Amino acid sequence: MWTPHRYKFCPSCGAAVDYRVPADDNRERAVCSACEAIHYENPINVVGTLPFWEQGDQVQVLLCRRAIEPRHGFWTLPAGFLELGETSAQGAQRETDEEAGAQIELLPLYCLMNVVPVGQIHLYYRARLLSTEFKPGPETLEARLFHEHELPWDELAFRTVRETLRRFFEDRRLGRPYALHCADIS
Amino acid sequence: MWTPHRYKFCPSCGAAVDYRVPADDNRERAVCSACEAIHYENPINVVGTLPFWEQGDQVQVLLCRRAIEPRHGFWTLPAGFLELGETSAQGAQRETDEEAGAQIELLPLYCLMNVVPVGQIHLYYRARLLSTEFKPGPETLEARLFHEHELPWDELAFRTVRETLRRFFEDRRLGRPYALHCADIS
Repeated sequence: MWTPHRYKFCPSCGAAVDYRVPADDNRERAVCSACEAIHYENPINVVGTLPFWEQGDQVQVLLCRRAIEPRHGFWTLPAGFLELGETSAQGAQRETDEEAGAQIELLPLYCLMNVVPVGQIHLYYRARLLSTEFKPGPETLEARLFHEHELPWDELAFRTVRETLRRFFEDRRLGRPYALHCADIS
Repeated sequence: MWTPHRYKFCPSCGAAVDYRVPADDNRERAVCSACEAIHYENPINVVGTLPFWEQGDQVQVLLCRRAIEPRHGFWTLPAGFLELGETSAQGAQRETDEEAGAQIELLPLYCLMNVVPVGQIHLYYRARLLSTEFKPGPETLEARLFHEHELPWDELAFRTVRETLRRFFEDRRLGRPYALHCADIS
């Protein structure tokens, strides 16, 4: 298992930290050798949108080409880490604005995907585009619309982007009502 | 906004940390004064279940009386912090086992609630009880079944527990199919 952050020193007092199982616990934690504070490490959330532009029975989806690592130059749905002080829906809207400068109407949560190897949960909301003008921010090289047959499947940045897009076009093809998809990405 | 964890020292090198907005960012972060590592703080996830026992048109739900702070002595659905190395569904099952010792069949995700003031997302799955024998763990004083009219509404530990129970009985009363509820708790 990939651990996103291993403590060496105590963020409260600066003393060295040991990894051990505290009393009344069953997992190894970072425990301060001096002040005995326990520092927990937990999965974090990535929030984003699947923005689409519908005209009649045609649909296009918005992807952003990444100007930053990881996966520089690859295509992604607008998404990023959920911040303290915002809801998952607010975070998804903020990321869509920051990365694509896209005007959207946020629709219900569409995918919740556990990405256990990197300690993340990815949450994607469907989002109706209100315009086709985009103003990509500094984290994005380019933001553009794709029809299904144009999608750069081999140049997508993340597995959860692929899985979210795949489900969206499958739901449409089958005429299924959009409901939450939950999945685990190993 | 309540911040769950303020860094004073760098967990990587032990030097003092400043809160400032790093280059290419728009929020204050904990930045090490020596090694310049940036330490992000993000919302974390609480995962749990709404375990129910159905007989004909009667239903009872399982609550646990807390043996630990916060909210010692109050009633809760079995739930706790999602750990690294597990999916949200696995975490919900683990907590149900640890807190109630209940045998369940996990059903689809039922509630996703943002609790912004404490930097948490709470995820509750519906769960069918396979037996009415419980083996509460050390964090639980008592685990028992409640009919709706018996629920200890004034002695529930957390708002998300109340909101999840309320939605469950409302969905049943209205004969609505169970679908995901998303809500924000302020």
